[in-house]
Amino acid sequence: MGEKIVENKQIIFKGYIEGAPKETDMELRVGKKIKLEAPKGSGALLVKNLYLSCDPYMRGRMRDYHGSYVPPFLPGSVVEGFGVSKVVHSDNQNYKQGDIVCGFTGWEEYSLIYETEQLRKVKPDDDIPLSYYIGLLGMPGFTAYVGFYEICAPKKNEYVFVSAASGAVGQLVGQLAKLHGCYVVGSAGTSQKVDLLKNKLGFDEAFNYKEEPDLDAALKRYFPQGIDIYFENVGGAMLEAVLLNMRIHGRIAVCGMVSQHGTSDPNGIRNLFNLIPKRIKMQGFLQSDHLELFPRFLEEVGSLYKQGKITYLEDMDEGLESGPSAFAGLFSGKNVGKQVICVAHE
Amino acid sequence: MGEKIVENKQIIFKGYIEGAPKETDMELRVGKKIKLEAPKGSGALLVKNLYLSCDPYMRGRMRDYHGSYVPPFLPGSVVEGFGVSKVVHSDNQNYKQGDIVCGFTGWEEYSLIYETEQLRKVKPDDDIPLSYYIGLLGMPGFTAYVGFYEICAPKKNEYVFVSAASGAVGQLVGQLAKLHGCYVVGSAGTSQKVDLLKNKLGFDEAFNYKEEPDLDAALKRYFPQGIDIYFENVGGAMLEAVLLNMRIHGRIAVCGMVSQHGTSDPNGIRNLFNLIPKRIKMQGFLQSDHLELFPRFLEEVGSLYKQGKITYLEDMDEGLESGPSAFAGLFSGKNVGKQVICVAHE
Repeated sequence: MGEKIVENKQIIFKGYIEGAPKETDMELRVGKKIKLEAPKGSGALLVKNLYLSCDPYMRGRMRDYHGSYVPPFLPGSVVEGFGVSKVVHSDNQNYKQGDIVCGFTGWEEYSLIYETEQLRKVKPDDDIPLSYYIGLLGMPGFTAYVGFYEICAPKKNEYVFVSAASGAVGQLVGQLAKLHGCYVVGSAGTSQKVDLLKNKLGFDEAFNYKEEPDLDAALKRYFPQGIDIYFENVGGAMLEAVLLNMRIHGRIAVCGMVSQHGTSDPNGIRNLFNLIPKRIKMQGFLQSDHLELFPRFLEEVGSLYKQGKITYLEDMDEGLESGPSAFAGLFSGKNVGKQVICVAHE
Repeated sequence: MGEKIVENKQIIFKGYIEGAPKETDMELRVGKKIKLEAPKGSGALLVKNLYLSCDPYMRGRMRDYHGSYVPPFLPGSVVEGFGVSKVVHSDNQNYKQGDIVCGFTGWEEYSLIYETEQLRKVKPDDDIPLSYYIGLLGMPGFTAYVGFYEICAPKKNEYVFVSAASGAVGQLVGQLAKLHGCYVVGSAGTSQKVDLLKNKLGFDEAFNYKEEPDLDAALKRYFPQGIDIYFENVGGAMLEAVLLNMRIHGRIAVCGMVSQHGTSDPNGIRNLFNLIPKRIKMQGFLQSDHLELFPRFLEEVGSLYKQGKITYLEDMDEGLESGPSAFAGLFSGKNVGKQVICVAHE
């Protein structure tokens, strides 16, 4: 490989924020050049980024707080996130040109990746879109898998409620719960999403929380017997209503609280007392604590998908420049399904 | 046994309440008579009540809500609670006159108990005060035992925080945690209680939450490395401060939220988001779900007490008429240790 140098468009994180992310918190930077070569002896890979993932957890990296499980972004630096990339040049014996990898990469056209141990090689499969490796078969899908099976400990015929149910994680939780023999209801924020939940993703019922002035009443309507399992993606008023409707020995897997990102003074939960008489277990989790299950997840969920037993909704924006608005859209529910940015098709 | 009829003083529940219980929510009724005999063929016991237990959960029976794990009190009826009683007359082959029993009884001098299956016979032991069978060796002690070992899953050297730490449950949690090799800090509401925690109950540290304008700062002072286990008895602002100071994979056993009983608009918890990055498990529990462990508890904790390895603080009020004020005092922290009413010494 020669010394090919190309232009490399990038998305830059501008600076720490409060409240919900806005498109203007990131910006496109043009004019940077990159040598399409991994330095000799570095063990690194020079990759071309194909698909980038927009995930709510990234909000946590946009504040100046170093005590979390991922460090903050550096103002002025390229945004980092999960991606699917193609190896252009390898200085690492485990990878060769043309390999497809997924893992942490930069929001830019080409990236030089030194930390190759966090990458995973993707075995291309004509029946599985490459972008699914940052969605259904990537971190969000694995979050659903771990959260549902490990944290919720589901039993057949249990009543399952999923908020943000058409999102990257929720849609798989609901489908896994249906396959497990549960009764599943999802909430979402538009009638289009509600329709998809019921008619494409196989939820038993779904409702638009924005059209429910009384969330407690809505849940009582959909769960007259109460809720055994709540897969929590939103927090706030929905969680309060859920606590009123949980059944004894119910489980709440706390995956996200996206309603709380947008405000520096989130709504307080005033009825946690319900945890006691109902003996509820409420547990926060991260998929990264359960990576030993990843191979099994990939095998099982990949196989279910290929058998047509589960489906996956993606919201794909074209072009690196669409990144900032696509990311900001997560926090207003603009995306329908897993939000992906297509930087290049191959 | 003849047809002996005696006067039977009683404490009556006056009617459903809002907010924290007051002494005037109950009243003494005199003049009722009772025949000291269990009706033939009833299988019942006629008992003389010796010690009655004042427990915060009883607040839950003072509202007109039938969906909980215990039904509400009936306005105008005798208050019910745990007690230690002596059998005066038995129509049940499993019990004889003079037996000591503990279980649900009435707040009155004599009770006729039909539901004998909920009773437990106490084997008198000169080294164990009878009143301990509604405290250290009764429901509160068993709550501490189950909550600490089963819900908190403690490991040696972990950092344990107990609120309402000198109370009926908290004082045993702290002592069990010390015996387990943990570092234990307790909070309480008077300097006398703080002193008892440190100098009599063996807590490593203790503080008066009423003298701490910034609970987060107080916890950071006592737990510079953070908290692994929080035994939650109070709720509200303390829980918010604790969530800021929990360590990764921390556990919160939710036993009570006594600060929330006193208000119809409890403080909301605004930082539950911490459950996710810290992967915290927060679990409500009731001791009654774990009764299979009761014999082991009785054996272990009884033996620890007799070896002098644990101690137990009781706050004993004399006379049935002291019941209403003793009960109301639980909610302002008037009691020092387990609140008991002595109706009769034998």
